[in-house]
Amino acid sequence: MKMVDTCQLKADRRDQHRVMRENGHMAADQSTAGTIRVGVIGGGQLARMMVPPAIHLGMRISVLAENEGSSAERAADQVGDYRDPETVYAFADTVDVVTFDHEHVPQPILRELEARGVAVHPRPDALQYAQDKILMREKLAELGVPIPDWAAVSNEQQLQEFIDAHSGRAVVKTARGGYDGKGVRVVSQADEVRDWFTALAEDGHGGHLLVEELVDFTRELSQLVARRPSGEVRTWPVVETIQKDGVCAEVIAPAPSSAATQSEAATAAALIEAEAEHIGRVVAEGTGVTGVLAVEMFETRDGRLLVNELAMRPHNSGHFTIEGSVTSQFEQHLRAVTDLPLGDTSMSQPVAVMVNVLGGPEEGAMPVRYASVLEAHPSAKVHSYDKLPRPGRKVGHVTVTGQDLDAVLTEARAAASMFE
Amino acid sequence: MKMVDTCQLKADRRDQHRVMRENGHMAADQSTAGTIRVGVIGGGQLARMMVPPAIHLGMRISVLAENEGSSAERAADQVGDYRDPETVYAFADTVDVVTFDHEHVPQPILRELEARGVAVHPRPDALQYAQDKILMREKLAELGVPIPDWAAVSNEQQLQEFIDAHSGRAVVKTARGGYDGKGVRVVSQADEVRDWFTALAEDGHGGHLLVEELVDFTRELSQLVARRPSGEVRTWPVVETIQKDGVCAEVIAPAPSSAATQSEAATAAALIEAEAEHIGRVVAEGTGVTGVLAVEMFETRDGRLLVNELAMRPHNSGHFTIEGSVTSQFEQHLRAVTDLPLGDTSMSQPVAVMVNVLGGPEEGAMPVRYASVLEAHPSAKVHSYDKLPRPGRKVGHVTVTGQDLDAVLTEARAAASMFE
Repeated sequence: MKMVDTCQLKADRRDQHRVMRENGHMAADQSTAGTIRVGVIGGGQLARMMVPPAIHLGMRISVLAENEGSSAERAADQVGDYRDPETVYAFADTVDVVTFDHEHVPQPILRELEARGVAVHPRPDALQYAQDKILMREKLAELGVPIPDWAAVSNEQQLQEFIDAHSGRAVVKTARGGYDGKGVRVVSQADEVRDWFTALAEDGHGGHLLVEELVDFTRELSQLVARRPSGEVRTWPVVETIQKDGVCAEVIAPAPSSAATQSEAATAAALIEAEAEHIGRVVAEGTGVTGVLAVEMFETRDGRLLVNELAMRPHNSGHFTIEGSVTSQFEQHLRAVTDLPLGDTSMSQPVAVMVNVLGGPEEGAMPVRYASVLEAHPSAKVHSYDKLPRPGRKVGHVTVTGQDLDAVLTEARAAASMFE
Repeated sequence: MKMVDTCQLKADRRDQHRVMRENGHMAADQSTAGTIRVGVIGGGQLARMMVPPAIHLGMRISVLAENEGSSAERAADQVGDYRDPETVYAFADTVDVVTFDHEHVPQPILRELEARGVAVHPRPDALQYAQDKILMREKLAELGVPIPDWAAVSNEQQLQEFIDAHSGRAVVKTARGGYDGKGVRVVSQADEVRDWFTALAEDGHGGHLLVEELVDFTRELSQLVARRPSGEVRTWPVVETIQKDGVCAEVIAPAPSSAATQSEAATAAALIEAEAEHIGRVVAEGTGVTGVLAVEMFETRDGRLLVNELAMRPHNSGHFTIEGSVTSQFEQHLRAVTDLPLGDTSMSQPVAVMVNVLGGPEEGAMPVRYASVLEAHPSAKVHSYDKLPRPGRKVGHVTVTGQDLDAVLTEARAAASMFE
């Protein structure tokens, strides 16, 4: 039998690259040959969805996944712990630029990578604002970006004072580690987050919790932005995001207007779009982010936009761009972190709707339902992250594009619901 | 260091699958879990471009590549010789269905795979018509599909008789192994292909050459069709293909009309589209092809369509579908060979133009030019097959979509030319 396992070939090539880099042959030669090697830390669906545009652009992408069976495993050259410095340094040695599927790589590791001459995007100076919500609020305030009233509190008394000064209710968030509604509680009494204060005290850092006013919002919006190291910025049209239980459930692109008449609606949508884009640019330039940035915002009853969260990576609110935009957020992220010119962010169809598949079919991964779903919805673009079902877990999404919002929304919801 | 090489994990999993299949645990369990495993024989750019839709659909794709460094190598689990039966059988053992990047796997191997219970699509009974041009002409004639006048000739005298009966010139083709203009000669004297007759005599099969009338065509068209085992057929709009030196250089989708006035043009285009679609369906159903089929046609000066070639796989004339269609030919091929319902083949924009990059930059792979090309053409979708440059070699392509044919064509040509 004449079969050769390419895994051995890949391993050999990795060793060869390491030797070449150690001998100083690599940096210049790489650009001459045209090979661009991107390393992604984190093996979730965001890393997974970076692989298709990397294949189309002819980039070589490697993923450092947390564990076997992670969503991006098919692209994963390596599995290892991103909190282990040596694991990360060895991975970085095999690529031209390091980027991320998540924001959890510790700052000391990121700064050491830069000290070793590794290109890291977004850079640690920017990424810190996505890693720590209190640093983020301080930065946004400094930039003059509209945000909810907030405070950093280190004990129950300070928290209760904030609550009492804000109509008796407030949102408390852990500064680090929260996502998809985790690390967020709406409280009326300070003792409802006593466990969090206790944990903070125990971790020896004596840190703070973030408390914010409860915003009376009519809907949530998300502004996607891309920025490359040399400064170019591109924005997509602002989208409306619909959350269920703190998790993004649906995205409508571009964000429609809820105003009464058609002409008012168009004017209102244009104003909101311009304001959201302005905020997105200010945040991208003010934080120095590189790659894709998502700025999640509240639209208040009186028509203001307030920034709620930042994510410095491709984001669930941008999955619609795979089919709905000339340049997807995943392609744009690759272009941005390799400092290549950014692509056109226009809609490729007037409307795109993305609906997440949460939980998934009881009997297995999403493809178990393909025979019926694809039959009923031939124009739905179905994405499965190759994850096993679990209540509430994001296992995939469905995108539909078209001319008419109502028709597109109905179709996307119907297709996604068949997986649940 | 806690890094684990997933290559070892993949190898372990392959062994596990083989053991499970040998023990009879696999067939039923697979569909319950929802995992769909597609194996592609051949590691060129067609296999490479099947990987992105496989990732999006959550399918697991494996590629049996000819050699290290092939275009689809990033997806290649295995490298081996497709002419070696044991290599192919071992590969088939790791997947649910076997399909192809090319048509060169020998019939005895394909038939043995089927005898062993492996799902093979397209099936050998259909694939033989793409493997042997004389069998193809016989079948097309039997189906009543319009084709150029032709004959199978086994010596110079027979060939000269055909030439003399057809205005003194004809096209001679080897029955097997030709592509991209290779194995095709326009001749006026039979001795211009004496080397081919000699080779046929030497291979011991005493075979035939195909000779065809030289068609007076105004342009070339290609009709893409997909068909699944259970019989469903979908067609894309017919496209115009522009060849240079026997190689596909540009594709315009849908095929425009060359008629004088606008209303005449629309009528003519609709007639041609309907006729091409009819021919595509007759060929797909008549040959029993499964997966994507490309039917290349001549449009004659007097407005007839004549079938020139068939390809039973995704085809260069369908690369525009990646951005230009709701369902790309690569996604459709995966759906068809796994017998899943086929997707919507509508255009996602009114016009799409694809221009091949032939040869590529002198100084390396296409990404060496990205800094300037992407800057100048932010709406161009650039595809690099990660191949080194070589005169005339297909190393990538550029697609532009939009409303206006002239603008789209100009943009696509300008972007592609910057790589040459």
